[in-house]
Amino acid sequence: MAKNEGFVKEIADIEADFPQWYTDVVLKTKLVDYGPVKGTMVIRPYGYAIWENIQRELDARFKAAGVENAYFPLLIPMSFMTKEAEHVEGFAPEVAVVTHAGGEKLQEPLVVRPTSETIIGHMFGKWVESWRDLPLRQNQWCNVMRWEKTTRPFLRTSEFLWQEGHSVYATGEEAERETLRMLSLYETFAREVLAMPVLTGRKTEKEKFAGAVATYGMEAMMHDGKSLQSGTTHYMGQNFAKAFGVQFTDKDGSLKYGYTMSYGVSTRLIGALIMTHGDGRGLVLPPPVAPVQVVIVPVAMQKEGVLAACKELAFGLEAAGLRVKVDDSDNSPGWKFNEWEMKGVPVRLELGPRDIAAGKVVAMRRDTLEKSELSLAEAPALVVELLRAVTEGLYEKAARRMRERIVTAETLDELLSGVSGGFVRAGWCGDRACEDKVKEFAQATARVIDGEHTQKTCVCCGKQAAHTVFFARAY
Amino acid sequence: MAKNEGFVKEIADIEADFPQWYTDVVLKTKLVDYGPVKGTMVIRPYGYAIWENIQRELDARFKAAGVENAYFPLLIPMSFMTKEAEHVEGFAPEVAVVTHAGGEKLQEPLVVRPTSETIIGHMFGKWVESWRDLPLRQNQWCNVMRWEKTTRPFLRTSEFLWQEGHSVYATGEEAERETLRMLSLYETFAREVLAMPVLTGRKTEKEKFAGAVATYGMEAMMHDGKSLQSGTTHYMGQNFAKAFGVQFTDKDGSLKYGYTMSYGVSTRLIGALIMTHGDGRGLVLPPPVAPVQVVIVPVAMQKEGVLAACKELAFGLEAAGLRVKVDDSDNSPGWKFNEWEMKGVPVRLELGPRDIAAGKVVAMRRDTLEKSELSLAEAPALVVELLRAVTEGLYEKAARRMRERIVTAETLDELLSGVSGGFVRAGWCGDRACEDKVKEFAQATARVIDGEHTQKTCVCCGKQAAHTVFFARAY
Repeated sequence: MAKNEGFVKEIADIEADFPQWYTDVVLKTKLVDYGPVKGTMVIRPYGYAIWENIQRELDARFKAAGVENAYFPLLIPMSFMTKEAEHVEGFAPEVAVVTHAGGEKLQEPLVVRPTSETIIGHMFGKWVESWRDLPLRQNQWCNVMRWEKTTRPFLRTSEFLWQEGHSVYATGEEAERETLRMLSLYETFAREVLAMPVLTGRKTEKEKFAGAVATYGMEAMMHDGKSLQSGTTHYMGQNFAKAFGVQFTDKDGSLKYGYTMSYGVSTRLIGALIMTHGDGRGLVLPPPVAPVQVVIVPVAMQKEGVLAACKELAFGLEAAGLRVKVDDSDNSPGWKFNEWEMKGVPVRLELGPRDIAAGKVVAMRRDTLEKSELSLAEAPALVVELLRAVTEGLYEKAARRMRERIVTAETLDELLSGVSGGFVRAGWCGDRACEDKVKEFAQATARVIDGEHTQKTCVCCGKQAAHTVFFARAY
Repeated sequence: MAKNEGFVKEIADIEADFPQWYTDVVLKTKLVDYGPVKGTMVIRPYGYAIWENIQRELDARFKAAGVENAYFPLLIPMSFMTKEAEHVEGFAPEVAVVTHAGGEKLQEPLVVRPTSETIIGHMFGKWVESWRDLPLRQNQWCNVMRWEKTTRPFLRTSEFLWQEGHSVYATGEEAERETLRMLSLYETFAREVLAMPVLTGRKTEKEKFAGAVATYGMEAMMHDGKSLQSGTTHYMGQNFAKAFGVQFTDKDGSLKYGYTMSYGVSTRLIGALIMTHGDGRGLVLPPPVAPVQVVIVPVAMQKEGVLAACKELAFGLEAAGLRVKVDDSDNSPGWKFNEWEMKGVPVRLELGPRDIAAGKVVAMRRDTLEKSELSLAEAPALVVELLRAVTEGLYEKAARRMRERIVTAETLDELLSGVSGGFVRAGWCGDRACEDKVKEFAQATARVIDGEHTQKTCVCCGKQAAHTVFFARAY
């Protein structure tokens, strides 16, 4: 196993230097590369295939929920940004601006969308006339741009890919219900497709979306105990409807403003699953999104019949709906084992002359590194089952970590101790001053408000708690 | 049928004013709307669903051909554009430029990609090291921007969606072969999925891509006899490889530049199919890309059992893999007929109490407006067959038009006459001066070089012809 060790050394130690481990893993498994402009990334085929799987799974859920896809323009007139006061304050410092086009200076600068509430609000204002047009529920898959000072591939880049859904309803109740329903859709998606447990809840005023009445988020705990905001939904009330004239004639003939909401997840989810499931050997990809779910490594490949048997096995697995690769390259089996372990392929099958003779195949689960022998004849059904077990195992492992690393704090010192390795549940009086002080004292922020537990006193000022909050250090 | 006539009047007469017909159809069927910035479009759900179908069909063909998807950054350093002399000359006048971001003026302006040869060339230069890395074949689905003076939805807009494939090969022969293979893939796709016949061939020097050694195009004939460039493939030789240092160590140890090629189709294809198949009643969508392939209109909907029978019919059709809509809205059947005819749904089924009793359903083909009676029990298989017939019928009709409207010209007057209603096949000496003169005299351009026929003399100067060319007026 000398080769294996040599290989693993290419990646920094996950426990000693998690940030370097992350950088090593995303670059060396060819998920991503740095673009030529500071803060940009190139999503390479192995990374983009994960995104395609995320898109396919999530898009099907949106469509089943009755949401339609559309596409709105990239460039937004600067004047749109200023129509909603909080919105411009939040996003103006981060936008990239087109000032020249077609060889001329533009009369009005155009903003590269950081998010599309304004331009979609404008179009919805054009389209919505009557209560019969409501609800209007559209989504787009697109690129957005937020000029960030500190960037890291997938987690924070100046340009990223995402989906943003936008709905208008006739009443605030309906729009708020949709805000919670989409949060729930995200949570289910995270569990079933990314094998990722999340905490969900309302964001504090400080952490909410610029222009929203209320923002809800889902937060996942990474390997190092820090939190990653993995998806958000926003209830806008009539803020954007009023700014963009989204009005409808109600059944009684009166003219009313609609209520809007929006929701989004991004390529950040790829970063989330890497930092949730990865281990010392590299990536561990959840089967539902793994570009290659099963790799077949021939043993004694030059022996007659081995490669043919591997390909026949692959056909059987593909027929069962799996994404399969036979690694028939010239590299040694040991080299291949390391390569595909680092790339996080959920199940490896090893097939050599002796296995073939015995009607067996050796399977290894990437998550536990456990090996087992499977009947070659029944391999497709057994591998489908094994992949399901890997998905469940990954979820359980991450859920256990999250359970074990959430502590309750009564004091700032306890909070500080708790956020060094996980999340902290604590009371909060509701004042921004206390929220800021926690940030300063413990470099931790209020991730979401905990709707299930109640603490009596504010962890910071000791006054009566208005909410119980999950505090954590966050990416 | 008074209502029907009233409805049709909303659309301009297709023969009398084809440009207005186009604008009316794309807006009134809600395929698209104008964006707030001049020259931009919003692709609405009905239009975007066509694009999704195009993407799915084409993406599967790329993947089957071994191409991988990736994603490259939107913003390209201005200095990249100038590295390939012809490229910058061709694209610089059309680019949109980001000069400010994150509240500061950028040190170097960034171009919103008009196409990605430069930035992909830069990345390929980083990734390619050895002959083992070749060929490298990647594709991206993304938005691009070209600041155009005169715009029209789908046909020419400042921002549009497309795919752009880019490959590097070790030899020029391989890269050129891929250029022709992708042209052939597009041609097959146009025929099978868009029911659209095309002419393919090499472009003249004047019409080629800025920076290419050779460009190949596919041209489709629209309803009015004008040509629409519907897809292009480009052989770059070593132009971009040299500009961006795409070098590899060959088997013999020597360092060589690669040979690159690229290929793309865009949302323009949606415009192409509208203008190829549309008729006086509106859209006529080819079944493979129609968002709704079959609409079921209940007759006497309030009668017991009618709606249930319609839904059961829909389930059966959906189980056969079709995209089906039951129009159970409050509108009259006549209103529904008009609506779905304008929206181009390939097959309409009418089902009322008498049909149900007789075990029949009335089917109407949108392309020919022919009605027939189908057995209700066998409807799924029969409708699948009917849709196949519609696709073939659309192709045959368009192919017949193209055959009938291609004329051969020996003189400029004959050419002028020919391009007023179709394409003209004519000899050309190969001189740019003659190409320019044809443009001035007949407002027609060389679309592609005809590889199959030969003309003896140049239609313009009368000297010996170097090529036979298809001339046409073009969108």
